[in-house]
Amino acid sequence: MNSALPTGSTLIADLRPEAREAPESGIVEVMNYGRLREGLIPLWVGEGDLPTPAFIRDAAARSLAAGETFYTWQRGIPELREALARYHERLYGQPFSPERFFVTGSGMQSLQIVVRMIAGPGDELIIPTPAWPNFVAATSVGGARPVCVPMEYDQGRFTLDLGKLEAAITPKTRGMLINSPSNPTGWTATKAEQEALLALSRKHGIWIVADEIYGRFVYDGSARAPSFHDIMAPEDRVIFVQTFSKNWAMTGWRIGWIEAPEAFGQVIENLIQYSTSGSPVFVQRGAVAALDEGEDFIAGQIARAAEGRRIVHEGLKATNRVSLAAPVGAFYQFFTVDGREDSRKLALDLVDTANVGLAPGTAFGPGGEKGLRLCFARNAADLTEAVARLQKALMAA
Amino acid sequence: MNSALPTGSTLIADLRPEAREAPESGIVEVMNYGRLREGLIPLWVGEGDLPTPAFIRDAAARSLAAGETFYTWQRGIPELREALARYHERLYGQPFSPERFFVTGSGMQSLQIVVRMIAGPGDELIIPTPAWPNFVAATSVGGARPVCVPMEYDQGRFTLDLGKLEAAITPKTRGMLINSPSNPTGWTATKAEQEALLALSRKHGIWIVADEIYGRFVYDGSARAPSFHDIMAPEDRVIFVQTFSKNWAMTGWRIGWIEAPEAFGQVIENLIQYSTSGSPVFVQRGAVAALDEGEDFIAGQIARAAEGRRIVHEGLKATNRVSLAAPVGAFYQFFTVDGREDSRKLALDLVDTANVGLAPGTAFGPGGEKGLRLCFARNAADLTEAVARLQKALMAA
Repeated sequence: MNSALPTGSTLIADLRPEAREAPESGIVEVMNYGRLREGLIPLWVGEGDLPTPAFIRDAAARSLAAGETFYTWQRGIPELREALARYHERLYGQPFSPERFFVTGSGMQSLQIVVRMIAGPGDELIIPTPAWPNFVAATSVGGARPVCVPMEYDQGRFTLDLGKLEAAITPKTRGMLINSPSNPTGWTATKAEQEALLALSRKHGIWIVADEIYGRFVYDGSARAPSFHDIMAPEDRVIFVQTFSKNWAMTGWRIGWIEAPEAFGQVIENLIQYSTSGSPVFVQRGAVAALDEGEDFIAGQIARAAEGRRIVHEGLKATNRVSLAAPVGAFYQFFTVDGREDSRKLALDLVDTANVGLAPGTAFGPGGEKGLRLCFARNAADLTEAVARLQKALMAA
Repeated sequence: MNSALPTGSTLIADLRPEAREAPESGIVEVMNYGRLREGLIPLWVGEGDLPTPAFIRDAAARSLAAGETFYTWQRGIPELREALARYHERLYGQPFSPERFFVTGSGMQSLQIVVRMIAGPGDELIIPTPAWPNFVAATSVGGARPVCVPMEYDQGRFTLDLGKLEAAITPKTRGMLINSPSNPTGWTATKAEQEALLALSRKHGIWIVADEIYGRFVYDGSARAPSFHDIMAPEDRVIFVQTFSKNWAMTGWRIGWIEAPEAFGQVIENLIQYSTSGSPVFVQRGAVAALDEGEDFIAGQIARAAEGRRIVHEGLKATNRVSLAAPVGAFYQFFTVDGREDSRKLALDLVDTANVGLAPGTAFGPGGEKGLRLCFARNAADLTEAVARLQKALMAA
């Protein structure tokens, strides 16, 4: 044993390859480089700068004070499943049964469980990229093969080539992970595109895992992005993964949900039982408050993001050194910098030269390697300052 | 589509078999049967009747009030990892690095991650049974094969046959899940038995997954049960899965930890990232308070369990209808009833005849099918009443 190595170094080779080879996030690498810089403006993760609103924190605190600290329903407390049904009824204008909703310990856990339900060794899942890196990682860690289909890119705008997507379908394909509005690109499927995706699902008998977590964050004046809810039939192969993180500024709470056919209830309950065994009641009480009393807060968040989007888009465009399109949805500006194709190096450089933290496109898979992702869910003053610094750094480079 | 079936019924066949076939807990079946009975005394799950103490709840509430609602370290906040190191130093009398500790969203998640690290399709994990059902389920859901090795049973007492255990090791064996003190049997490995198990690990190059979560609950006057910590070397293949649930009455909080070689840090961090992406800071603040200020509470819990153990053991023994031994550790009384070998039916019957909820031995795998598990982590009055009812029901039967 070499005492210069941490204990256990010789044992790592003895772990399963799927575990050993789970990739470190490419975002985290840049964060670790810049984490302790004085005055750095962190726009690298998908998190705003507002804490969870007090009415949600207070609901959780009341539950704690009341001693709600025992085991509970693996599927989530009935009050939360009912609140989820009400929320969906308001948002999508159609009836929902509480039995379609299953509370999880994060959108990430929703994804893990859904991947496990539909794909394993020998299976393939199709992922349009650039995409949230955890799609690819959750698929690989689950033993299935992620098949990345790069989206088309032209002057800052991404589009989905449905023909290329269908061409990627093989007999091993079990589903497609469709994130709309998209992190990191802002691409937002139109109703026609969703209909085409649903037709592929029906034709090939494959699942759509729908990540519509940014569905409230759209900037064309509509109340929400198009949703598979608008077009699907009860027996379609569509499962939704969702989170409380973005709409209600609850990133740190680790609570999300799965929306799936009622008949999957026992399967999902078992998979929750054998992964985290449920979510704390006091966290769920906060989530109920979020759903029932959170609309004003969400409206404020969307208005704030719209202003952030304007500041960032106009400011970066003014450099004449970048390609970008104002995103249709979500709260990220994706852009490329002329003559700077190594986004990992560029993101590290911008920590030094601009003291601004951005996520490198390399983190998001094929098709996004040359770009950078900037999260604009933040106050206007920070964003204005960040853009000024980026302008200076990019125009000096 | 048959409208009498829940939506999606036709799609279940389209899910992965590991997911579809994840077993429903045999304990939950009995709970569902008795859940709404007026006055039922519930001794079926591994949970006491005390809420989490106020000093822990208050620490979480302070964190919430301070707005600690953002993403945090995937491995756990440094303060909690340091508190875990201090706690282990006090308990085991040796130095521990905080870098050995990784915060998870429950003991269950610890188990899921550790199983994923060491075993997958084509691999086997050995599980002495009767055992907590989630050992077998987590192994199967992870795609590996659980190999149950029934313990020897004689007049209420379980013993581990090390020869039988070694005979179960094959070239596919990747590890052994060793729970001591045991849920449900109360079996507690002696130091000599742990040395023999460690020798098997070294000889065959297989992992020990050590579940010592009931290690504080022993009734022979010693401060804790023997631990692999007492005998292992830094490069041994031993990983610990742990939880805050039992010692600190935090079942509903969903927080636990993994203790593993430092060198595994990045692998474990990645697996946390791709399953739940960390634990809430405010929950972790509660856990820090538990570790640093919880010794009086734990002492009270142990004294209470010792009294519960006495009430239950003496009371059941007095019926002359049961076989049982007072458990060495943990807080369960496992017992068989003469002439009643169908424990599932007996547990359901006792809901009706005694209005007491017990867990059927069938839930715990080979070797425990004929028994019942009673959790005695409860106030003396409830236990006295439960035992009186059980006496009456068993002696009438």
